[in-house]
Amino acid sequence: MKSRRIFLQKAGLSALALNISTFNPISAMPNFLDAKKMDEKPLRVAIMGLGSYGTRVAEAIQETKRTKLVGVISGTPSKVEAWKTKYGIPAKNCYNYENFDAIKDNPDIDAVYVITPNGLHKDQVIRVAKAGKHAICEKPMAVNAADGQAMIDACKAAGVHLLIGYRMHFEANTLEVIKMRKAGEFGTPLFFQGLSGFIIGDPSQWRLQKSLSGGGAMMDIGIYSINGARYMLGEDPIWVTAQETKNNPEKFKEGIDETIQFQMGFPSGAVASCLSTYSMNNLDRFFLNGTKGWAEMQPSTGYGPIKGKTNQGPLDKPHTTHQAVQMDEMAAIIFDGKKPEVPVNGEEGVKDMKIIDAIFKAVKTGEKVTLKLA
Amino acid sequence: MKSRRIFLQKAGLSALALNISTFNPISAMPNFLDAKKMDEKPLRVAIMGLGSYGTRVAEAIQETKRTKLVGVISGTPSKVEAWKTKYGIPAKNCYNYENFDAIKDNPDIDAVYVITPNGLHKDQVIRVAKAGKHAICEKPMAVNAADGQAMIDACKAAGVHLLIGYRMHFEANTLEVIKMRKAGEFGTPLFFQGLSGFIIGDPSQWRLQKSLSGGGAMMDIGIYSINGARYMLGEDPIWVTAQETKNNPEKFKEGIDETIQFQMGFPSGAVASCLSTYSMNNLDRFFLNGTKGWAEMQPSTGYGPIKGKTNQGPLDKPHTTHQAVQMDEMAAIIFDGKKPEVPVNGEEGVKDMKIIDAIFKAVKTGEKVTLKLA
Repeated sequence: MKSRRIFLQKAGLSALALNISTFNPISAMPNFLDAKKMDEKPLRVAIMGLGSYGTRVAEAIQETKRTKLVGVISGTPSKVEAWKTKYGIPAKNCYNYENFDAIKDNPDIDAVYVITPNGLHKDQVIRVAKAGKHAICEKPMAVNAADGQAMIDACKAAGVHLLIGYRMHFEANTLEVIKMRKAGEFGTPLFFQGLSGFIIGDPSQWRLQKSLSGGGAMMDIGIYSINGARYMLGEDPIWVTAQETKNNPEKFKEGIDETIQFQMGFPSGAVASCLSTYSMNNLDRFFLNGTKGWAEMQPSTGYGPIKGKTNQGPLDKPHTTHQAVQMDEMAAIIFDGKKPEVPVNGEEGVKDMKIIDAIFKAVKTGEKVTLKLA
Repeated sequence: MKSRRIFLQKAGLSALALNISTFNPISAMPNFLDAKKMDEKPLRVAIMGLGSYGTRVAEAIQETKRTKLVGVISGTPSKVEAWKTKYGIPAKNCYNYENFDAIKDNPDIDAVYVITPNGLHKDQVIRVAKAGKHAICEKPMAVNAADGQAMIDACKAAGVHLLIGYRMHFEANTLEVIKMRKAGEFGTPLFFQGLSGFIIGDPSQWRLQKSLSGGGAMMDIGIYSINGARYMLGEDPIWVTAQETKNNPEKFKEGIDETIQFQMGFPSGAVASCLSTYSMNNLDRFFLNGTKGWAEMQPSTGYGPIKGKTNQGPLDKPHTTHQAVQMDEMAAIIFDGKKPEVPVNGEEGVKDMKIIDAIFKAVKTGEKVTLKLA
């Protein structure tokens, strides 16, 4: 699919040609319709930060119907050269971290997807906003809520969208569980459990440097359990408690959390019990329990496929590349004003940051921290 | 099996007859051997408290190889009459709560299994000990650690055994996971999760009366997660934190916990995250995660069958009635001095009570409570 899309882009073939050349007319229909939309107006995206996740997003964009990778911002000239060749990116759409404010004068770029270390997001998103481009920012949006709010303010002032890279918010099985919960099929939701963990490798990576990451596992993957608690219960927490355990202080230095257990309470009386760790694999599970039923997702946030079941049976929505769905949905938000089932805007991002701030405070003080997110 | 055993007991048939009458000689072999042991010397048990769990134990005893139900202690004469008939219990082995100290003069009873409300265990077990009989006490052994210690002291002074009704400590799949953990098949254990919950019915039952129960869900089922954390990780906790949520204060009055989330830390750096509730079904799950593998049991503590799997495959030990295995193993402890894989003595019970005391303190103070169980 990816190579076909690239081929078609390069060859300048029409959407109609794409449809005709497809064997299966049923599966081709959405392609036909959406490719038509793309001809009308694709969201032209530059990726800032050409690391492994940036690469994943670039690949996913090749699968999208309404977005196009048109530019890059990177501090590594060799990467820029490789991407220019691979994705047919024109030299005029390539920037580095010093000169990318000039993007404001580039009419061929609509949005910048910031996929850099967390600690850099704030300044970079603000610069993107000032350049008049929509900002898509990888999660966590920042390293604390205050920075997140500054990003919202800058984007509002510039009249551009700020969207957070919450790919799970668009995942089909996740949305199915949310739909079932809203329809009352689990009764009253009372408990959410989120386990998020993997054993992190290279100790020199930016994710283990406080100035770049803003924290450890919590910032990187604990946020999935926070997201999950909120969208699966359908509420925002009013308190958090948290307990940190650090078994390897050499690898996980001051300010880099290795393992945090955290709990949240919600206005309805529902509770959440979560764990975030950089020291264990086999932890990617969501569990929602209500008075009438339950949902279990495992894996719940990996790149897919997401697997799960409810008291009614398996969750069987087909897998699609998360980042591709995310990008197309973000194009719909920007172009059509579409309201996603679960918000992915800056305000949503700041709620998560406020919760992370509270978790860190709870770890530090040992006390229950109350929250007011509304 | 139950009715056959009763028949054989009544008919006075020999163990050899049992063996010969069995179609499958392989499955019959243990029966043959153990029935022989029983002929030699069964543990003759009186049950104190003829409620639903007492009834379950009585039925299980019919399946055992080395124990025999020979007496009852009850405050309800109609129940005593029914049990006399059903189990062939002689009138001289029937007592009530006023006169059961006279059991000391009854040479036909070896042990009393106390299956009464938690708040009564202490005095009743001490009276059993003073009567010179071995005490088997349903869990939780008491309503706090101090009472539990008093029970230990009384049994020691009387030279009788004190065993706690920890049926899971003898369950085959549970023991398989423990064996695998000890063999290092999960690597270093780092995380245990225990979820224990069901929706409790009749609000007038003793379990919802503080003076009889000593607490709510924690005393009744939270203790399973505490047990699980300890035997699956193979350590005793050094700290606990806990958060209580009460959504129905009419049903769950002062001192009766509805839902408690609790966390424990262990000397190795492992952590446990648990939930105990009387307001949710579908919560009976253990999960053990180590550096090399994991085990999941769900259901993990129900009356069975226990189901589970590890990273190596399904746990497939066949189901046997938990209470029957427990009783036979307890006979082996008493008669043979057998050391069970996981202790079930009073000291083990007091450790759990100390943890529950600490959880209640953590709920009350909102602070981390340190523990020294060794």
